Amino acid sequence: MALTFDHTTLGQRLLFGAGVAVEHTATAVAALGAERVLLVADAFAMELSDAIAARVPVIERIHDIVQHVPAARADAATALAASCDADAIVTIGGGSSTGLAKIVALRTGLPIVAVPTTFAGSEATSVWGLTTDQRKDTGSDSRVLPTAIVYDVTLSTGLPAQLAVSSGLNALAHAVDSFWAPRADPINRAMGTEGMNALIPGLRGLAADPADLEARERVLFGAYLAAVAFGSAGSAMHHKICHALGGAFDLPHAELHSIVLPYVAAFNMPAAPEAAARVSAALGGGDAASGLWRLREDLGAPRSLAEIGMREGDIALGAELAFDAIPLSNPRRVQPEELEALIRAAWAGEPV
Amino acid sequence: MALTFDHTTLGQRLLFGAGVAVEHTATAVAALGAERVLLVADAFAMELSDAIAARVPVIERIHDIVQHVPAARADAATALAASCDADAIVTIGGGSSTGLAKIVALRTGLPIVAVPTTFAGSEATSVWGLTTDQRKDTGSDSRVLPTAIVYDVTLSTGLPAQLAVSSGLNALAHAVDSFWAPRADPINRAMGTEGMNALIPGLRGLAADPADLEARERVLFGAYLAAVAFGSAGSAMHHKICHALGGAFDLPHAELHSIVLPYVAAFNMPAAPEAAARVSAALGGGDAASGLWRLREDLGAPRSLAEIGMREGDIALGAELAFDAIPLSNPRRVQPEELEALIRAAWAGEPV
Repeated sequence: MALTFDHTTLGQRLLFGAGVAVEHTATAVAALGAERVLLVADAFAMELSDAIAARVPVIERIHDIVQHVPAARADAATALAASCDADAIVTIGGGSSTGLAKIVALRTGLPIVAVPTTFAGSEATSVWGLTTDQRKDTGSDSRVLPTAIVYDVTLSTGLPAQLAVSSGLNALAHAVDSFWAPRADPINRAMGTEGMNALIPGLRGLAADPADLEARERVLFGAYLAAVAFGSAGSAMHHKICHALGGAFDLPHAELHSIVLPYVAAFNMPAAPEAAARVSAALGGGDAASGLWRLREDLGAPRSLAEIGMREGDIALGAELAFDAIPLSNPRRVQPEELEALIRAAWAGEPV
Repeated sequence: MALTFDHTTLGQRLLFGAGVAVEHTATAVAALGAERVLLVADAFAMELSDAIAARVPVIERIHDIVQHVPAARADAATALAASCDADAIVTIGGGSSTGLAKIVALRTGLPIVAVPTTFAGSEATSVWGLTTDQRKDTGSDSRVLPTAIVYDVTLSTGLPAQLAVSSGLNALAHAVDSFWAPRADPINRAMGTEGMNALIPGLRGLAADPADLEARERVLFGAYLAAVAFGSAGSAMHHKICHALGGAFDLPHAELHSIVLPYVAAFNMPAAPEAAARVSAALGGGDAASGLWRLREDLGAPRSLAEIGMREGDIALGAELAFDAIPLSNPRRVQPEELEALIRAAWAGEPV
């Protein structure tokens, strides 16, 4: 191996169980000794919010959640936390509620108990994001990492099957992209591998039967491990391309990631034999990149960037925007025209 | 899966690299902002201690390290930390130096930077031990977990090949026993699996060529992951038996563990198919328990408890002492006569 690395494992408590989110949240809050909880919850999670408020000392609630954490919302939430003298935050929802709580935690040091209802994975990372004047700043700070996560698969059943699949494929992209990311190391590789090994059969099961709770649970668990791997290893070629395209052309997040992944894999795998072997094994054998493409096909997720609203005329600009962001850690050097060809193939939905 | 679990991931920084222990230690101490370091180091690590003291603000040193952390030593070390107003502890050595520093940390809250020279794994757990009047108390506390670990494979080359192999097999027992331990869950199972997948080829390489640094590095890395899995999942049947036998009959630690493991595996595997599949895969196929027995044979590690000094007349007492400690989580219920037969087989070194 001849290993040299500097890895930080983030300390977190994980309470995992189907149908017991309220009990687990109460356990996690009690362990913090918190007595004045600010609840930050998606409006659609009102029933769960009420149930939690009946068991946990909630003193204020925020239900009006907006994507990408606008600065004004973050300021208001921070002011509310201060004025009510909160000593902990409980979040219910996807990346947007967790994201808002993270900014409050960044500014106040309050601990977070996160109750995710999607497979976004924000609850497992110390990455925060804040949007000021249309611009999204991101950063990493140990204060924003939730102290505890409560995973309950029954909370994600509201997610329509097709969105659940795209969201799970987005999680798979966290795992695969981590293998060649700037801070890739054997520990986050281990987490990414186990995440992938849970996600792939879970996604196949979920596509076959959206009511299959065990399959959905594997996706939830795999998405957590993939997020840990991604948070540790950092953002790599796949995420840089998606960030550039998503930001410039306002494309739907999960679908964008699920479409682009096989093309990045096809480009990198020849120069990343260990990653290729791990992905191939997780897929049950065969070529890793085309296996990822076939998986997306089998799951019935969108096939092309054209299909989700990207215009052909934006391909060149997209490639230009992404080019400078590709990390030096990428296993294969990228030429501008190669990147444009990659995005064009994804735009057209060409087979890999 | 139908998963329910409560897992705590312990936050730690890991600096891994061959030949750079001094630089990595300086980096870890600087990150703590420490300016008054108490160095706790095995006497044989004098050269490294001097090199570290030249780069790190060491104000006091303890080199007189005794096994099992006697209370009087722990009291003296704590008093020294207080009198010199230390703000961090650096340890160099195996479980004994780390163990001494852990008690000081438990009493003072000082952060530890651990520089292990063996495969014992104490640096990766929040478990402490203290011996008062011949009795060893143990416990778990997040304050004793080292904040950072510096792994440098060149520091373990002083370990004779045979001891390195036994010590690596002891680490393998951490991984295997974690699969059926009281707090076994999919996360510590992932760590245990990756640990085992590094340990087995590493040990084979080390036995073939003790100078093979890459093989030794795999053992070091695998031992770390196995210790994380063990620290998280808790002590199970194998460790309870070894603890009882080791404590009552004063048997050498690493050898004891490497002898007993295949017999516990043979007993439990029929009732633990997932663990059996993981161990079998790591061994390259075949029956898991006999594969573990053959691995120990291939590595030339001691084969029987008789060989390491246990008397036949002590088998019944050993079984009696171990019996009450077998956790309820064990996949197969144990009868007293089965436990005695298991220990007798290990005593005689019968093939598995």
